[in-house]
Amino acid sequence: MQNLKSTYISDSVISRLPRYYSFLSELKKQGVLKISSRELAERMGFTASQIRQDLNCFGDFGQQGYGYNIELLKEEIAKVLKLNTPTPAILIGLDSLGRAVAQQVNFEGFGFSLVGLFDNKESLVGQTIRNIPVRSMPMLDEFCRDWKPKAAILCLTKAEAQAVAEPLIRLGIEGFWNLGQFDLTLKNTEIPVQNVNLGDSLMILSYKI
Amino acid sequence: MQNLKSTYISDSVISRLPRYYSFLSELKKQGVLKISSRELAERMGFTASQIRQDLNCFGDFGQQGYGYNIELLKEEIAKVLKLNTPTPAILIGLDSLGRAVAQQVNFEGFGFSLVGLFDNKESLVGQTIRNIPVRSMPMLDEFCRDWKPKAAILCLTKAEAQAVAEPLIRLGIEGFWNLGQFDLTLKNTEIPVQNVNLGDSLMILSYKI
Repeated sequence: MQNLKSTYISDSVISRLPRYYSFLSELKKQGVLKISSRELAERMGFTASQIRQDLNCFGDFGQQGYGYNIELLKEEIAKVLKLNTPTPAILIGLDSLGRAVAQQVNFEGFGFSLVGLFDNKESLVGQTIRNIPVRSMPMLDEFCRDWKPKAAILCLTKAEAQAVAEPLIRLGIEGFWNLGQFDLTLKNTEIPVQNVNLGDSLMILSYKI
Repeated sequence: MQNLKSTYISDSVISRLPRYYSFLSELKKQGVLKISSRELAERMGFTASQIRQDLNCFGDFGQQGYGYNIELLKEEIAKVLKLNTPTPAILIGLDSLGRAVAQQVNFEGFGFSLVGLFDNKESLVGQTIRNIPVRSMPMLDEFCRDWKPKAAILCLTKAEAQAVAEPLIRLGIEGFWNLGQFDLTLKNTEIPVQNVNLGDSLMILSYKI
């Protein structure tokens, strides 16, 4: 059995793993069994040496003259990204973006399971999305004690997100996915935050066009 | 007048400019007039030398013992990111995510103006969002000739996005903002694509928790 060569993988390698994972998943769907680093490089727009360096972290999947075993490499990356052990997550804020995310994002495919939905608006409480009822914010404490969610998805204004983040950490939340058009910053820098920040992405496109 | 010292700014500096811009905008709102590189560093989580290096691209805003003039620096970054000359954009695909993006994203603040909405579904055509009518896909050619949009925002499946991207380039589109849960790749690598890829961001959070 191949095993991780080391437990330390740099942030820049980690940031590329989702792309490898998605690409390998697609190849697997197409029935491809193996691929050379040269071909993987061409199709992903990386250099072959970059790919060998990145995937070297995962043991001996790349054999000279054989290439990478797609199934095994994909499974190993899934293990590193903890995709097979879904993290229970709650989503807070069900305006149109929050609702769209709850409806459309394939959480299960990306390492999460959506277990709870929360909003303050009376008109939304009691509605169901993906068979999950929308609960009011005062239910949060009890829900977290019972369901032990580890991740919070925030579709909130900056003020709302900043106000709710610290209490959520006390309720056991260990990471945030922030979909607001701002960066969420926490006092406790040990807690990971992924800021999607649609605005940043648009501004970079504005520059590039 | 301060001017850009050089026209070349590296990709990694560019990727940080939106964060500087947002942060400076916030300081300006709070009535702050100037800030030292040390304080900017502390509050943004960068090092002071990183900040001096980044902002050095923009002329002499950082004066020893004075700090950065927030208003001037913000305006200079806005110029580089072309935020004051909005790029006309169309959005294609008005399922719940596309609709939420059309409704909620502050395009004007990020260098774009939304001029057209398109979807294939009969039930959506003729509805209006932000006073913009949803048009059917066969209207795309004529619309692009008349309105000359330069950017396309895609809220589509992978197959749909790949099918529509090349024709859009022929219709004058010069850049794509892709909100699908996949990376859009084009034959013409000169055309910039910003892939939001919500799935990648979730997988990285899954790893970090």
